[in-house]
Amino acid sequence: MPAEGVDSTMIPEDASKTSKTTIALDAMGGDFAPDEIVHGAIAVAGPSLHVILTGRRAEIERCLAAAEDSIREYITVVDAPDVIGFDEDPVNAVRTKTGSSLVMACREVAEGRADGVISAGNTGAMLAAALFNLKRIHGLKRPGLCAVLPTPGKPTLFIDVGANSEVRPVHLLEFANMASIFAQFVLDMKNPSVGLVSIGEESIKGNDLVLEAHRLMAASPDLNFYGNIEGRDMVRNVVDVVVTDGFTGNVSLKLMESTSSLIVEEVKKAASRGIVAKIGGLLLKKQLMAFKDSIDNEEHGGAYLLGVRGLAVVCHGNASRRAIASALKYTARASEQRLISKLEERIRTLGDVARL
Amino acid sequence: MPAEGVDSTMIPEDASKTSKTTIALDAMGGDFAPDEIVHGAIAVAGPSLHVILTGRRAEIERCLAAAEDSIREYITVVDAPDVIGFDEDPVNAVRTKTGSSLVMACREVAEGRADGVISAGNTGAMLAAALFNLKRIHGLKRPGLCAVLPTPGKPTLFIDVGANSEVRPVHLLEFANMASIFAQFVLDMKNPSVGLVSIGEESIKGNDLVLEAHRLMAASPDLNFYGNIEGRDMVRNVVDVVVTDGFTGNVSLKLMESTSSLIVEEVKKAASRGIVAKIGGLLLKKQLMAFKDSIDNEEHGGAYLLGVRGLAVVCHGNASRRAIASALKYTARASEQRLISKLEERIRTLGDVARL
Repeated sequence: MPAEGVDSTMIPEDASKTSKTTIALDAMGGDFAPDEIVHGAIAVAGPSLHVILTGRRAEIERCLAAAEDSIREYITVVDAPDVIGFDEDPVNAVRTKTGSSLVMACREVAEGRADGVISAGNTGAMLAAALFNLKRIHGLKRPGLCAVLPTPGKPTLFIDVGANSEVRPVHLLEFANMASIFAQFVLDMKNPSVGLVSIGEESIKGNDLVLEAHRLMAASPDLNFYGNIEGRDMVRNVVDVVVTDGFTGNVSLKLMESTSSLIVEEVKKAASRGIVAKIGGLLLKKQLMAFKDSIDNEEHGGAYLLGVRGLAVVCHGNASRRAIASALKYTARASEQRLISKLEERIRTLGDVARL
Repeated sequence: MPAEGVDSTMIPEDASKTSKTTIALDAMGGDFAPDEIVHGAIAVAGPSLHVILTGRRAEIERCLAAAEDSIREYITVVDAPDVIGFDEDPVNAVRTKTGSSLVMACREVAEGRADGVISAGNTGAMLAAALFNLKRIHGLKRPGLCAVLPTPGKPTLFIDVGANSEVRPVHLLEFANMASIFAQFVLDMKNPSVGLVSIGEESIKGNDLVLEAHRLMAASPDLNFYGNIEGRDMVRNVVDVVVTDGFTGNVSLKLMESTSSLIVEEVKKAASRGIVAKIGGLLLKKQLMAFKDSIDNEEHGGAYLLGVRGLAVVCHGNASRRAIASALKYTARASEQRLISKLEERIRTLGDVARL
């Protein structure tokens, strides 16, 4: 269930008063589109954050009727007749449905009218559309998809969660450096530590990919490299940034989400067995809800495709207005912080290594 | 904390009345060795299950003082002066410490005095010792380590959880077939379904390894192949047997354990915040403990190395007497069911495919 309200204080102070950012938002992507998507835009649009909604104009305008005029003027609608469904083959859909809300949102960035693009639609299609339409940043070999996990205490960045199912060591080096920059400038983490996922902590543990990536990362001058981490460390705040290939990353992310929701379901079931347990569950409810909020997936909006010119953000299919508002907030912040330039600078320092 | 008592009814009926099985048990391996290890043996040793304990004789005999004479006669002690520590390099330790409890336990099987071997010591060393000392079953390319996960409802088998950090498609085919046989004959699952871990359900999703493994598994005559599964399905009883490479498997297993214990810890913390929550927690305690028991890692003993002649079992370092008793029980059952012969028969049917 999407959250009812959105806290407008979520926009960082610095973002609300400085330069103008424009973000393209696929209004038709997601289980609760277009309503929740449009309401996410209404919640955060303003003088410093313009939103371009792409999709079926009539449906979007109906949702926009809820917006006050003072907000409405910061939202533009671009009519896009087509929609890419969740079940469509990503590459084929992106090639053939050029008039879809998702592809047209990406084109707003490609053609210079927006700084970033967000979709809660077909994840594969969004990745394909962003990779096809947006140029890679100079010198980079592979963009990576970076999720921000709501681990208790502080968030953990997790890259790559599915953009690349086969990688070489230098790609892991690029992912590590890009996610560090994102952590530092968008999430305000100081000198973020980076761990490489392996099957043992020692530098000699792992497969060939990990052994060589470890060597490259240890030699990377601007990286706060912690070393190898194991599966058990990934959710334990051992490091700020977790680096792995897109296959392991995608499997791990989905497994992690599934395991935590499974345990929460089982605790709920336990609290409904018999009158005593039911009373116990009611007394505990407030604290359990507070915990549930603290590991809320929607707080950080979605997964960020790092390495293309213009931030591309993939939200969960079930994204609520709150998730969309968060994604808009972080994308705006990335733009204010000139994330792309900072990524380019960092990738330039990898030049010598990247030629390997 | 190790459990206090062990339920002797855990031995399957058929195992207690039929042929004699002998299992070698590393008495010195594990955080609670030798006490918990020896007590695990005392709990299940009997006319149908002889246990050979390897380790420092004096320490073992001290623990064995607790055993009744009627049980004591089914336990043999083999003196092994050395112990391999958790921090030692596995391969080096196995090569140099030939008089260690772990290596000597494996040799009991290699030299025909035992049918299976169990250790809760250094996992890497146990894998190395088993792979060095025990012959592979005929025609097999790669043994795989199979964990039995306590997923709610029914257990899920998970192979490979760390024996092979680099694999080829045919190895995944072998893992799938071996774990199916184990599920069928040791865990009494009828026609167990098998899923291949990938980053999408469609057969065209995944990396090169998975695409080819999918093709082989779909063509494997005796396999009840479900198709690809995603990370989210691994703990949801979508299939009985989950197949993946040892890198992804090891990372996933540790992540899963860590995520579930993290959530349980957070629920406990929530139940200690304020008097109302504390009372709620107390009222819920019984149901929560029942749930905790239902996902008890110790119920299935440990992880089973499938593909060597003689079952080799790796238990958690923190194994209690209950975990050890379970491992003994399942290893005995595997022996009674002539698991090794059944694995050989199945591997023979893969002959044509395995030559690829």
